[in-house]
Amino acid sequence: MITGKNHIGQTLKASGNTTYKTVNPKLNLENPTAFYDATTTEVAEAANLAWEAFKVYRKVSGKKRAEFLNAIADEILALDQELLDMYTTESGLPEGRAVGERGRTIFQLRSFADLIQNEDWRTNVFDAAQPDRTPLPKADLRKTTIPLGPVVVLGASNFPLAFSTAGGDTASALASGCPVIVKSHPMHSGTGELVANAVITAAQKTGMPNGVFSNLNGKSIDVGTALVQHPKVKALGFTGSVKGGRALFNLAAQREEPIPVFAEMGSINPVIIMPKAIEKRSDTLSTQYAGSITLGTGQFCTNPGLIIMVDNNHTTQFIKDLAAKTVAIDAQCMLHPNIKEGFVKNGDQIAAQQGVETVAKIQETLHANYAPSQITAVSGAEFLNNPKLHQEVFGPFSLVVKAKDEAELVSVINGLEGQLTGTIIAETEEYSKLHDIIDALEDRVGRIIFNGVPTGVEVCPSMQHGGPYPASTDSRFTAVGTDSIKRWVRPISYQSFPKELLPKALK
Amino acid sequence: MITGKNHIGQTLKASGNTTYKTVNPKLNLENPTAFYDATTTEVAEAANLAWEAFKVYRKVSGKKRAEFLNAIADEILALDQELLDMYTTESGLPEGRAVGERGRTIFQLRSFADLIQNEDWRTNVFDAAQPDRTPLPKADLRKTTIPLGPVVVLGASNFPLAFSTAGGDTASALASGCPVIVKSHPMHSGTGELVANAVITAAQKTGMPNGVFSNLNGKSIDVGTALVQHPKVKALGFTGSVKGGRALFNLAAQREEPIPVFAEMGSINPVIIMPKAIEKRSDTLSTQYAGSITLGTGQFCTNPGLIIMVDNNHTTQFIKDLAAKTVAIDAQCMLHPNIKEGFVKNGDQIAAQQGVETVAKIQETLHANYAPSQITAVSGAEFLNNPKLHQEVFGPFSLVVKAKDEAELVSVINGLEGQLTGTIIAETEEYSKLHDIIDALEDRVGRIIFNGVPTGVEVCPSMQHGGPYPASTDSRFTAVGTDSIKRWVRPISYQSFPKELLPKALK
Repeated sequence: MITGKNHIGQTLKASGNTTYKTVNPKLNLENPTAFYDATTTEVAEAANLAWEAFKVYRKVSGKKRAEFLNAIADEILALDQELLDMYTTESGLPEGRAVGERGRTIFQLRSFADLIQNEDWRTNVFDAAQPDRTPLPKADLRKTTIPLGPVVVLGASNFPLAFSTAGGDTASALASGCPVIVKSHPMHSGTGELVANAVITAAQKTGMPNGVFSNLNGKSIDVGTALVQHPKVKALGFTGSVKGGRALFNLAAQREEPIPVFAEMGSINPVIIMPKAIEKRSDTLSTQYAGSITLGTGQFCTNPGLIIMVDNNHTTQFIKDLAAKTVAIDAQCMLHPNIKEGFVKNGDQIAAQQGVETVAKIQETLHANYAPSQITAVSGAEFLNNPKLHQEVFGPFSLVVKAKDEAELVSVINGLEGQLTGTIIAETEEYSKLHDIIDALEDRVGRIIFNGVPTGVEVCPSMQHGGPYPASTDSRFTAVGTDSIKRWVRPISYQSFPKELLPKALK
Repeated sequence: MITGKNHIGQTLKASGNTTYKTVNPKLNLENPTAFYDATTTEVAEAANLAWEAFKVYRKVSGKKRAEFLNAIADEILALDQELLDMYTTESGLPEGRAVGERGRTIFQLRSFADLIQNEDWRTNVFDAAQPDRTPLPKADLRKTTIPLGPVVVLGASNFPLAFSTAGGDTASALASGCPVIVKSHPMHSGTGELVANAVITAAQKTGMPNGVFSNLNGKSIDVGTALVQHPKVKALGFTGSVKGGRALFNLAAQREEPIPVFAEMGSINPVIIMPKAIEKRSDTLSTQYAGSITLGTGQFCTNPGLIIMVDNNHTTQFIKDLAAKTVAIDAQCMLHPNIKEGFVKNGDQIAAQQGVETVAKIQETLHANYAPSQITAVSGAEFLNNPKLHQEVFGPFSLVVKAKDEAELVSVINGLEGQLTGTIIAETEEYSKLHDIIDALEDRVGRIIFNGVPTGVEVCPSMQHGGPYPASTDSRFTAVGTDSIKRWVRPISYQSFPKELLPKALK
């Protein structure tokens, strides 16, 4: 049972008058529960409670925090079919995806629980005293990390579990010792409330301080704005559009005390396909990429929205095949009417640009919110001249850029904004030609994939999910993988400290 | 011989009309050389050249970059007496300090040279492929770091060598693979030009690309503004005032592509002295702290500007002794007439606040720019009520806060802005009482010192020099020590990459 109310720590509140409902995109109907936008007072209550909780929580041992994270995982699993039903109802995604994403969410929570069983993740550093050093003795100095304070998380529409209420941002922040205030995504606030219940129950069962977690509803930008401006909020995690992420980044930078913002935003994820690869495995590649472009109805941040290759007869055939195979895949439901609307509008805008050819497009879909997949193509010269062609089209869409030669292909990469990923498809015999392409990609992306697809972001220590702006607002950190915990901590040194007073990590 | 011109890479230019001169603060006279503010065109030339250099320099091996850093150290040493004379002339600091600071600068350069001999500093992460994993195979994934791009460095007035032209910011950025553009500090631009010559010579001798280093003069804020706004500039290091650092941070955040700014700014470095310590070693402590307060004419960012203790008879005597010993130390020359003026103005402003007692002050100094040391005292209640008392007075000044009890002492710490350091002076028998104080300090500072003084910042891996705002603009990084290299790099992952194409760090 969900209430539509805000979790201010363990207390449910709904003192405001503004409400909203989520939508069942498959039925194109509103779901029944009215969610109450958190009021400014409720935001302040959550922030102040998080600050009080922080004083206690930052001293809670890693083992106890790990118990909390594992309990969250257990409670989420215990929601069972109720959660899967809510997820599919609010997202239009199939149940198999719900189960898979729940698995990823659980895996993330348990990965962080494992990570913080000991204090090694802090990369503690020790310098021994040198009392006899001349001209001055050297003091004993030890460095560890401590949590920043209450973290606000604004989750993604496209991963109602893994990048939302108890997703990677929340799991990493709680693991680090920071309380979390989630601003629930208005497209899946029912799923959000169920997961918030799980987190709160887990907090109570494992004895965590009240306020270690809050969940606030908000359809308007006011709730997010009030949260990022609150003095007791010390960092922010966001996954979503460039417009939204940048607005929050600006607010954070304008505070009297600026705070770090990690916003993972737009990306078109360029894929470079080399001539010999097209020659040798055009059929396999077009099948593979039709699948990657339409995966999750194209609603992945690593969706391959841009395919770049040198123009020749083979590529012409490849583009035709890719387009035919993409539109042959049954249209799927998008997350929300607004997302469907944006997909159509943005896709049409690209298609209407000078020199852009729509190679294939699903003309009619059975349901209101099903996505008409589209593959377009354009010359390298046109692409280089028209920044509008760099815009992300969130959904099953890709633009193929036909460069006249390899030099132009490299120019196209160099002209791109920052990206989450870049992919290279090449045959062994082409490796020696790839240096300029790799150099160009290194400068523009956070992860380079070889002979694969960009969709599928492994949760592991070596993952970098984040890249130069506007892929993210701070390319020095990752949003996925255990290293994402580093976003929420800062180093602190202890000089000449008595052992008994040192934090556990430095003893 | 210095020219007053700007180094745009290897080329000396002075196409502007605005000039300034440095001052000999001891003589209170201008030095002869006219320095030419870099024009907007020259700024753009330096930035574009740095970008071209970056394409080459980021691929230069660690061993070669280390040769460059060591050559810079050699060339600085080769400047010999000319550099020491210029340093003392422009800073008013004694030659012994010049020699010591030169040693620190050399040590920093050589430390980074040692660090980058191999690729371990990148904290490379490897995840092996699991081709048989179900439901999906896991790809081989490896993560390393790469440099961000051209870095702008705005050095500190108070360390013309160690935190300026070839100081810690420049050394760490060059070590990381980033070209550097220094905006020369207008108080020591002659020293800056000599050091810039050394860097340029070292770059030429070790075959580094032209543009790996530039040095631009600028007295007005225009040069710094143009630099931080240039699209080819990708990060900024600054040491100086809160006002200056915040202005640069704001400009960086307002760019179309925001860039990271690490600004190390103001700090009053609270020192907590516990009752038993005062009882047992008042005399030693007052001597030690009179020395720390006046060290370098109080012009250290870790200067103990705030001493907090519980008020009692012993502390009254301690404050008297500290004040008497502080003013008994001969007045020393400050760095510049403007700094002297600011010191007097800011010190007078604190002294004029309600409830503030000037315990002792040097009433007359022999020379215009010599600093009249001052020790003031105030009650905990007054301090808590008056944020003006939190302002840094850059120079030999300290405010002693007399808290009525330990609870008030903790409140005073909690009410402070972010700080570089906090210090605790306590006897063993008092350790059990320190938990609240340590908790409060952890939340406010980057380094906690036990039974010592905050002045003296060791260059070593475990050093944290940076703290919550306004001590620095990004508390997740340090300005001193080998970890400061992490400010200038970002992670990048390589998925399923052929070994021959991987960067050296991941092979």
